[in-house]
Amino acid sequence: MIAIGIPRSPEIELKAEGSYGSLPCWACLLLELRTVKAAVVTCGGLCPGLNSIIRGVTKCLWHEYGVREILGITAGYNGLSDPDSHPPIKLTEENVRDIHMKGGSIIKAARGGFDAEKICDNLQRLGITVLFLVGGDGTQFAGHLLYEAARKRRLDVSIVGIPKSIDNDVVLFDRTFGFETAVAKASEVIRNALVEASSCDRGVGIVKLMGRDSGFVAMHAATAADVVDLCMIPEVNVKMKDVLEHVDATLARKKYMVIAVAEGAGQEHVSTGKKDDTGHTIYGDIGVFLKDTLNKHLKPSGGRTFYIDPSYIIRSVPITPNDHIYCVRLANDAVHTAMRGYTGVCVGAMHNIVCMLPSRLIATGKKKVRPHSSSWQGCVQTCNMPAALSGLF
Amino acid sequence: MIAIGIPRSPEIELKAEGSYGSLPCWACLLLELRTVKAAVVTCGGLCPGLNSIIRGVTKCLWHEYGVREILGITAGYNGLSDPDSHPPIKLTEENVRDIHMKGGSIIKAARGGFDAEKICDNLQRLGITVLFLVGGDGTQFAGHLLYEAARKRRLDVSIVGIPKSIDNDVVLFDRTFGFETAVAKASEVIRNALVEASSCDRGVGIVKLMGRDSGFVAMHAATAADVVDLCMIPEVNVKMKDVLEHVDATLARKKYMVIAVAEGAGQEHVSTGKKDDTGHTIYGDIGVFLKDTLNKHLKPSGGRTFYIDPSYIIRSVPITPNDHIYCVRLANDAVHTAMRGYTGVCVGAMHNIVCMLPSRLIATGKKKVRPHSSSWQGCVQTCNMPAALSGLF
Amino acid sequence: MIAIGIPRSPEIELKAEGSYGSLPCWACLLLELRTVKAAVVTCGGLCPGLNSIIRGVTKCLWHEYGVREILGITAGYNGLSDPDSHPPIKLTEENVRDIHMKGGSIIKAARGGFDAEKICDNLQRLGITVLFLVGGDGTQFAGHLLYEAARKRRLDVSIVGIPKSIDNDVVLFDRTFGFETAVAKASEVIRNALVEASSCDRGVGIVKLMGRDSGFVAMHAATAADVVDLCMIPEVNVKMKDVLEHVDATLARKKYMVIAVAEGAGQEHVSTGKKDDTGHTIYGDIGVFLKDTLNKHLKPSGGRTFYIDPSYIIRSVPITPNDHIYCVRLANDAVHTAMRGYTGVCVGAMHNIVCMLPSRLIATGKKKVRPHSSSWQGCVQTCNMPAALSGLF
Amino acid sequence: MIAIGIPRSPEIELKAEGSYGSLPCWACLLLELRTVKAAVVTCGGLCPGLNSIIRGVTKCLWHEYGVREILGITAGYNGLSDPDSHPPIKLTEENVRDIHMKGGSIIKAARGGFDAEKICDNLQRLGITVLFLVGGDGTQFAGHLLYEAARKRRLDVSIVGIPKSIDNDVVLFDRTFGFETAVAKASEVIRNALVEASSCDRGVGIVKLMGRDSGFVAMHAATAADVVDLCMIPEVNVKMKDVLEHVDATLARKKYMVIAVAEGAGQEHVSTGKKDDTGHTIYGDIGVFLKDTLNKHLKPSGGRTFYIDPSYIIRSVPITPNDHIYCVRLANDAVHTAMRGYTGVCVGAMHNIVCMLPSRLIATGKKKVRPHSSSWQGCVQTCNMPAALSGLF
Repeated sequence: MIAIGIPRSPEIELKAEGSYGSLPCWACLLLELRTVKAAVVTCGGLCPGLNSIIRGVTKCLWHEYGVREILGITAGYNGLSDPDSHPPIKLTEENVRDIHMKGGSIIKAARGGFDAEKICDNLQRLGITVLFLVGGDGTQFAGHLLYEAARKRRLDVSIVGIPKSIDNDVVLFDRTFGFETAVAKASEVIRNALVEASSCDRGVGIVKLMGRDSGFVAMHAATAADVVDLCMIPEVNVKMKDVLEHVDATLARKKYMVIAVAEGAGQEHVSTGKKDDTGHTIYGDIGVFLKDTLNKHLKPSGGRTFYIDPSYIIRSVPITPNDHIYCVRLANDAVHTAMRGYTGVCVGAMHNIVCMLPSRLIATGKKKVRPHSSSWQGCVQTCNMPAALSGLF
Repeated sequence: MIAIGIPRSPEIELKAEGSYGSLPCWACLLLELRTVKAAVVTCGGLCPGLNSIIRGVTKCLWHEYGVREILGITAGYNGLSDPDSHPPIKLTEENVRDIHMKGGSIIKAARGGFDAEKICDNLQRLGITVLFLVGGDGTQFAGHLLYEAARKRRLDVSIVGIPKSIDNDVVLFDRTFGFETAVAKASEVIRNALVEASSCDRGVGIVKLMGRDSGFVAMHAATAADVVDLCMIPEVNVKMKDVLEHVDATLARKKYMVIAVAEGAGQEHVSTGKKDDTGHTIYGDIGVFLKDTLNKHLKPSGGRTFYIDPSYIIRSVPITPNDHIYCVRLANDAVHTAMRGYTGVCVGAMHNIVCMLPSRLIATGKKKVRPHSSSWQGCVQTCNMPAALSGLF
Repeated sequence: MIAIGIPRSPEIELKAEGSYGSLPCWACLLLELRTVKAAVVTCGGLCPGLNSIIRGVTKCLWHEYGVREILGITAGYNGLSDPDSHPPIKLTEENVRDIHMKGGSIIKAARGGFDAEKICDNLQRLGITVLFLVGGDGTQFAGHLLYEAARKRRLDVSIVGIPKSIDNDVVLFDRTFGFETAVAKASEVIRNALVEASSCDRGVGIVKLMGRDSGFVAMHAATAADVVDLCMIPEVNVKMKDVLEHVDATLARKKYMVIAVAEGAGQEHVSTGKKDDTGHTIYGDIGVFLKDTLNKHLKPSGGRTFYIDPSYIIRSVPITPNDHIYCVRLANDAVHTAMRGYTGVCVGAMHNIVCMLPSRLIATGKKKVRPHSSSWQGCVQTCNMPAALSGLF
Repeated sequence: MIAIGIPRSPEIELKAEGSYGSLPCWACLLLELRTVKAAVVTCGGLCPGLNSIIRGVTKCLWHEYGVREILGITAGYNGLSDPDSHPPIKLTEENVRDIHMKGGSIIKAARGGFDAEKICDNLQRLGITVLFLVGGDGTQFAGHLLYEAARKRRLDVSIVGIPKSIDNDVVLFDRTFGFETAVAKASEVIRNALVEASSCDRGVGIVKLMGRDSGFVAMHAATAADVVDLCMIPEVNVKMKDVLEHVDATLARKKYMVIAVAEGAGQEHVSTGKKDDTGHTIYGDIGVFLKDTLNKHLKPSGGRTFYIDPSYIIRSVPITPNDHIYCVRLANDAVHTAMRGYTGVCVGAMHNIVCMLPSRLIATGKKKVRPHSSSWQGCVQTCNMPAALSGLF
């Protein structure tokens, strides 16, 4: 964030910019820093970097603002709605020191549990004046509702979101934290598939990767591993006839091949037509479908598939160094944003500059791979995929 | 092998010991080194270290014996029975130089294809006088049959096996190559499961590991990761009631837990009662059974499982340094053994000294974990498992 | 490349799609693709990603343009000035297939050997019409001279540079390939230093990192490892008195500390006053100076240093997945640039869009860390460095 | 340890074997378990696995014997001689849970500080009845002296050593913990040297490895990396003339080469003739000597060296999975040994069975590589070293 130096210059006022928040501007806030009580919560599934964010937020509050009351809310929104069942953890400079070196979330991530009114009650009861929400678009939309509920009650609380999506499908911002790490691990697994496929006659390695709506992980991992012959993403519909032709051509040329497929790809072939309790479409398993289809297709000619579904292995790895730098930037800027009194906003990089945007904007959709983009066409080229699978036609 | 210096001292005779072979003793062989044509074949599924063995054999033949005609038979026994469909690759000092740094087998591993008579024909036709068989007990038994067929024809060929089993279930020898590497990778995956389980309320990570008949991989990986709370192996039958009690007790104490289960464990709970075309029992999927059972058991209390089946990821990793040293020893000693004229034998370490044994002995059974052994009881202790799951009662 | 045709050598004109270069436009070029002969050369020291670039260039030429004559010039400019002593290697789709998985350069990187006239002779003699120069600012300036010499001779050759600097000190472009990989490995080594320092009473780990003129590697690695207490870079002069005070304060607080220092930092303390044969200043060894100074300073109180100089270890690692993606983009865009007839230009990302710029611009200086930038101030904050070491005063 | 099941069967008596100890046999001990207070101390330099040992000892005491008073003595013997300056840390099941996943020693390793009488005073004062000493031959000899001093005072304390040597030079036992990990990391660094050397014309990579008196690390790492052309160890004297001839021959054949040299090798070429304060010979730096000698030798022909000294990087890595298993075995057996009342002994594996031996025996010398052993000759063969460098003549 360009304004990073500001917190050190208390004479600067932020009236105009500071108008979102329910708290006064940062200059005034300084006087009351002793009363600041902060909390951080991680919602949804695991994603690399959660501990980096938790640590970054804690460290910045501790060292830059002298805040000593920092709570790690456990079990996502559940811990805010019902802190008795899910008691928070005190976070200190000391107990977050090493956490960025391992995967997961020391405060446990969880889905569901959102209840704006109960949460407002608990924020008030616990005296929390600064709240950091780490989670996906659903979490940030809930954050927006919480911000509105808080404003209605005239609750003095800064609510700042840090969007999280291992799929990198958050709109408006450049990329999500943890995404590069997921791509790195995914590309490592793709190379496992390469070894399996190429150590066998007419072997086909298939790796199913995350990406319900957006194929960023599959696309980047395929480009990064640079040994993939077919990449399938939700944004590009393909005919199985074309897939099989490409498989045959590739096997004829190289004797083995590797496929990276996003979980949301090819739903036209595997659609379940069902929805779960919350109204979300239940996706068909494209990985298993591909495995079965190709095994059947290849059997006469002696080929076979090796199918890998590494989802949990990817989600749980420690963050990579470069990705950690991004987490630190986001965490710091989230803290600076909150401490200057902004609320109802999310932080993220736009054109590589960390900015804030109203949380409701983050929940307006999913970012998608554009089939005409140089990223996807570069991936198509890297994979030597034919025009029929390129999404251009 | 104690006798490692011997090939350099041509005056030593090896009559008594050398009596197995169809070739004369090593001393005579030296005179005919120019005519030696060697071949190496990798059978069965992938296992870390195949490339190390291929390289070790090639390098030792090349540098120590000056052999220049070395064939990599492709696709396992298929490449010996039908070299026209699966043409062999020429192996040279140059083209094996880097292969030990990556997983898989550059000459492709494959199952089936054994036909002793056709293979004898082809050995004769190709002029192969030294043959290295890398594969499991089935492969080595076939090696024994090949040795007998060759002897009947008075074929001048040394057939030396290097037993392979990622499960480490080869009888008589200390351990198989690739096993330590598999354990290392498996324990890494177990730590992924730990991250998932511990970043969630009442999370249970389940990792299914290889081990149809023997639980060595699961046992060692559980001990090595040192974060496992329950290890299940084929050699120890347990009641699901006891498993569920242990799960409840562990979750009550730690709020999360990790399970490592060998694929052949708990077959009494999942038995299919079916056999495949070759008469092998089709195993039930204990991993999925555990996942489903525990999900159902935990649902009322809010817990859930994270199930990982990393089989292909483990098989395909590059060999670890210490394991590579073992491969080099085996490869060298296999070459020395063959070049001295032994045949129908396998090499492996016994009490840490590389020895040779008749191949037919290798095929007499599977090595198993002994429930009373300090290895298993040490694993039980590491996991804090109760007596009911320890196999002692 | 979105920015097709935007930044360009002003004196050249672009007609339909590609009229700028010394070659005819791309449309025409297509007709003559069979006559295209390409070459790639890597100059200067090692940097992660060289093999990715070599592979990317080869693959793009091969698959997208059908070029089959691609030479890997060995030993940098030496191989162009004197191809008889340093014969080139033929690059094919096949022999570059795996190279991106390992560090180094398969065509060997080397310094010196530039002779514009000889090189023009050899380009002509070998029939090379497309040349890719991978190297630092010196290499690109030489590339500019070569372009001028070629133009004088009316040589039909496209000369396209891909700037390389493990220090990330190339002006104008966002970042150099290999830089993120270097940061990742450097931060791993910093964690080794942390282990040493913290497993000892009053231990101080010191890691010297690359960065003669610019502190990007040290700054990013310190931020990424997030365990560093003092980061020193060439752009920020500090007094040893302030350094020692910070060391004492940190040891008093934590009992151990970690220092990351760029090789060009603190030259005011270690200046040699000498220049080498080529007129470059010979730098004093700030790492050894810090080690000795701190050992002396700490001895009375029982402390000690652990000094690590990991330079060669960092330079030689395989590229990270995300960095490889950048290499692929650069390589592809370099090929598209060259094949459309541009020459005398370099490719690189500006605001994350790959563009081309005249090579002579690349050689006009070194990019530096700005002490007031949020990157450096964020690093200062991450390290908890006092104002006196922050470069702000 | 074969006797692993014993602690669970209190009816077994251990009279004869149990006679060393000052404590009665284990059966009686059980009655007094509540009064057991244990301590563990790590002496000397860092070595992978210290945290595994600390954790293993703590976990076994906690779960198998119900001991709840476990101290981590800080700063080696200093913390026993002067616990006021180096206060111990309480170890619990909880605070050792993750420590085996990172390098170093959470209780800090340190040299010196041994004073048998002061230590006996402090053991008495702190009520420590079980003491685990992790350290090299010097530490274990001090342990023997401490045992004698304690016996003289009739102090009820079990003193059990776990020998530590990253060089693997402990006599009598098969191998030391941490050694395999050191070999693994060393072989990784050797591959860095390979990349440097082979990406340059006539490049020579030199890696200096630990091994003052014994070349096990260099020998095993050279065999494991399997890309080394020359390995030099203290046990084999070589003439520089022969070294240079081998360098020339290797460069002529391959154009690059890699050297692994133990720090204690070739002292005849670099001897300082000096001794330090404690009477130990100060070794000359063979790594720098080789670098300088080869640079000079190669300059005329255009070659150069790349010298890497990775000592601290190797010492500080986390333990490998297989090595951790060994640590767990040692820790468990050390605890069982101590709890059964043995004292003045060390534990370690002999022919792969964990045994105990009187500590004074451990201090009687250093284990060395035998030049005629198959390990060294296998290494010579792997490196393609000529007879003159093989140690056989």
